[in-house]
Amino acid sequence: MTTLAIDRIGLLVTNDPGLGEGPLGVVRDAALVLEGDRVLAVERAGAQADERIDAGGRCVIPGFVDSHTHLVFAGERGDEFAARMAGAPYRAGGIRTTTDATRAASDDALTGLARRRRDEALRGGITHLEIKSGYGLDVATEERLCAVAAQLTDDVTFLGAHVVPAEYAGRADDYVGLVCGPMLAACAPHARWIDVFCEDGAFDEEQSRAVLEAGRAAGLGLRVHGNQLGPGAGVRLAVELGAASVDHCTHLTDDDVAALAGGETVATFLPATDFSTREPYPDARRVLDAGGRVAVATNCNPGSSYTTSMAFCIALAVRDLHMTIDEALQAATLGGARALRRTDVGHLAPGARADAVVLDAPSHAHLVYRPGVPLAATTISAGRVAWSAPWS
Amino acid sequence: MTTLAIDRIGLLVTNDPGLGEGPLGVVRDAALVLEGDRVLAVERAGAQADERIDAGGRCVIPGFVDSHTHLVFAGERGDEFAARMAGAPYRAGGIRTTTDATRAASDDALTGLARRRRDEALRGGITHLEIKSGYGLDVATEERLCAVAAQLTDDVTFLGAHVVPAEYAGRADDYVGLVCGPMLAACAPHARWIDVFCEDGAFDEEQSRAVLEAGRAAGLGLRVHGNQLGPGAGVRLAVELGAASVDHCTHLTDDDVAALAGGETVATFLPATDFSTREPYPDARRVLDAGGRVAVATNCNPGSSYTTSMAFCIALAVRDLHMTIDEALQAATLGGARALRRTDVGHLAPGARADAVVLDAPSHAHLVYRPGVPLAATTISAGRVAWSAPWS
Repeated sequence: MTTLAIDRIGLLVTNDPGLGEGPLGVVRDAALVLEGDRVLAVERAGAQADERIDAGGRCVIPGFVDSHTHLVFAGERGDEFAARMAGAPYRAGGIRTTTDATRAASDDALTGLARRRRDEALRGGITHLEIKSGYGLDVATEERLCAVAAQLTDDVTFLGAHVVPAEYAGRADDYVGLVCGPMLAACAPHARWIDVFCEDGAFDEEQSRAVLEAGRAAGLGLRVHGNQLGPGAGVRLAVELGAASVDHCTHLTDDDVAALAGGETVATFLPATDFSTREPYPDARRVLDAGGRVAVATNCNPGSSYTTSMAFCIALAVRDLHMTIDEALQAATLGGARALRRTDVGHLAPGARADAVVLDAPSHAHLVYRPGVPLAATTISAGRVAWSAPWS
Repeated sequence: MTTLAIDRIGLLVTNDPGLGEGPLGVVRDAALVLEGDRVLAVERAGAQADERIDAGGRCVIPGFVDSHTHLVFAGERGDEFAARMAGAPYRAGGIRTTTDATRAASDDALTGLARRRRDEALRGGITHLEIKSGYGLDVATEERLCAVAAQLTDDVTFLGAHVVPAEYAGRADDYVGLVCGPMLAACAPHARWIDVFCEDGAFDEEQSRAVLEAGRAAGLGLRVHGNQLGPGAGVRLAVELGAASVDHCTHLTDDDVAALAGGETVATFLPATDFSTREPYPDARRVLDAGGRVAVATNCNPGSSYTTSMAFCIALAVRDLHMTIDEALQAATLGGARALRRTDVGHLAPGARADAVVLDAPSHAHLVYRPGVPLAATTISAGRVAWSAPWS
C-alpha cells in the first residue's frame, strides 16, 4: 500500500478523540504519514514515504466534518434572499419553493448539482459531510433524494419531516403519518439518520416525537432541528430521546443549556444560518461553559444558509458566538464527528481516515484572522488529493 | 487591437457614473466587448470579437475597486488576533509590531509579499486597489514602501502619519514635523494621496490638519482615517478640507452624518475591520438615507483586517451595516472609484478600463447569499484574464 507524507509542516493541529473536549494537540515541524486511506503516523519532518507533499511550513488541520447539510436540491432562491436582506422576514415556508424545483429535477440533474456542491465543499476543506433529504416531501422524491445523497456520503439523513408540504396544508398529522409509514419505509434503507424540524411553523413536539420514535424503530439514529426561530421543545426532546445532535440552538433557555450539559446530545450551531436569516447569534459560551458538547456546521441549503464555507462558519463562531479559535476549529472537526457519532473522522490520530487540509497559513488562527480568504491550499480526502490550489 | 467578448452573460451589472447614486444598471443575455484595455461596448450576446469567453449565463460585474489597503508590510499578527478574539482589546499600537518587521525586510521581500496579496485580491475580483505606506515611520522606509506600492498601483497613499513611532514617544509634534517635512518630500514623488490616522492614540485634530495641509501643498489629494474607535474630529476635518474620503466611520454623530451629506467626501466603511476588532458595526443607512456617498473597502492590513475579500466586506455591509445588496455592490465598485476620484474604474460603460468579474452565480446577490464561497470564476484586469478558476 502506498504511503504519502505531508511533510515540513509548520504546525499540525490534531484532535485526539481520547482527549475529550480538551485542548487541541499541536505539533510543530512534523510529517503526517498516510497509508492508503488511513493516518499511519505523526512523525518528525523527513519521514519515510513513497510520495511526499511539501507543506513548506504551513499549517495542517484535520478535514472539516460538516454534520448538517441539505446538498441535494434544485433551483436557488437568490431573489428571496435579497428581499429578506431588504427587510422581509425569514419564513420556513420558502422550503416549498425548493421542493417544487427539486421534484421536477431528474436523478441525474440532482446528482450533478449535489456533486458540484460537494466539490466546492472539498475545495474549502470539508472532507466529510452529512446530507439530508427534505426537499421531496413525497415518498418517491424523498427516496430519490436519499439515494442520490447515498452516492456522496454514508451519513444520509431522512428528513421527510422538514416542513408540511402544500398538499397536506391543515393536515399535518396526516403528513406525519405518511412520514412515519410509507416514506420512512422507502427511505430507511438508504439512510443512517432520521431528523425532524421541531419548530413553530413546522412540526410540534408531539409530531416530532412520533417521527423520531418511528425512525428509531426503523433502525435510524436521531437528529433534531430545533430552537432556530424561538425557544421551543427541540433541545429538550433531543436530549430526552438521546439524539446524536440538536441543530440550530439559536434560542436556548437556561433549562435547554442545563439539558445539553447533562446529556450526550451535541449542540450543533449553524452560524451562517443566523447570518443569512438575520437572527441574533446564540452565545455558544453558555453551552461550552456548562460543559455541553458543541459542533459547528454549514447547514448548506438554498433558503437559509447557502454556503459550503466552514471557514466562514468558524469565523462567525468566534466573532459572534464567542468561541475561542481552538474551540471553533474543534467544533468543526471533532465536534462534527461526535454529532455524527463517528470516531474515524475529525482528528488525525493514527488509524483515523486520512482527511486533512493544508492551509495557506502558518496557523489555524488564520481561518478567522483572514475572513473570506480561501485558505485551503490542499485537501486530502481518504488519502487522495481532492483539491490543490493552483496558486499554492 | 484585439477585441475580447465576454459572451452569453445571464446578468451584466453595470454602474454608469453619470447616474449618480441611482440604481445599478442590469442587462440580461448580453456580451461585454473589450478592446485592448478598455470597454468597447455592451451588446446582445453573439457580438463580433477576435476572442470570446463564454459566461454561460453567469453574472458579470465591474471589478471591485478597493480604495483602502495597506498591502505592503512584512510579518503577521495571528497571535495578537487570537488574543483579541479571546478577550484582549484592540489597540492601534500593534502597528509598531508590523513596523519592526517591515523595516527589517528588503525591497524584494516586500515587493514579493505585496504582489502575493495583490494576486489573492485579483482572485477575489479586486481589479483596482489603493495602497498606503505607513509601516515604515521613518523617512527611508516610508519612501521604500511608497516605491514598492507604486509598482502595483497608481493610487499610492503616503501614510507616514499612521501612528507615532516608538522613537518619538511623547514627542508627537516632532514626528508630525518629520512627516510634513523630509518624509513628505521623499514620498510625494511616488504618491497621489496623503492620509492621516485622526484618532485618540494616533494624531489629534491639529496634528491631522497640519499633515493634510502639508500634503495638499505638495500636490497630494487628501484622505483621512477617522471615527474608528470612537467619535472624533476625523469626519468633520475631512469634509472641511474636501478630502476624497474619510475611512472607517464606525462611530458617527448626527453632526458627522450631516457633514457627510453636505460635502463631497465619500464615507468609506471598512466592515471587516469592525469584524476583526469586535467594534460595533456602523449603520450605513444613516449616511445613505441622508444622501451621503459611500464606499466599502477591505482595509487589508495585518492588524485590524487581514482580508482581501471584498465579497466578505459586501456580505457584512448588507447583513450588519444595513445596505441593500445593490448599494453594497455599488459601494464596492463605483463607490470605491469615487473615493479615489476616478472615473475610469468601478463601472462598465464604454471607455472604462476593462476590469470585470465573471461570478460563478446567476446574480450578484450571490455575493451575500453565498457568504465565504469564492465566486470569482474569471477576473479580467485591463482587458487581460488575470484569474480563471480551474473549477469553472
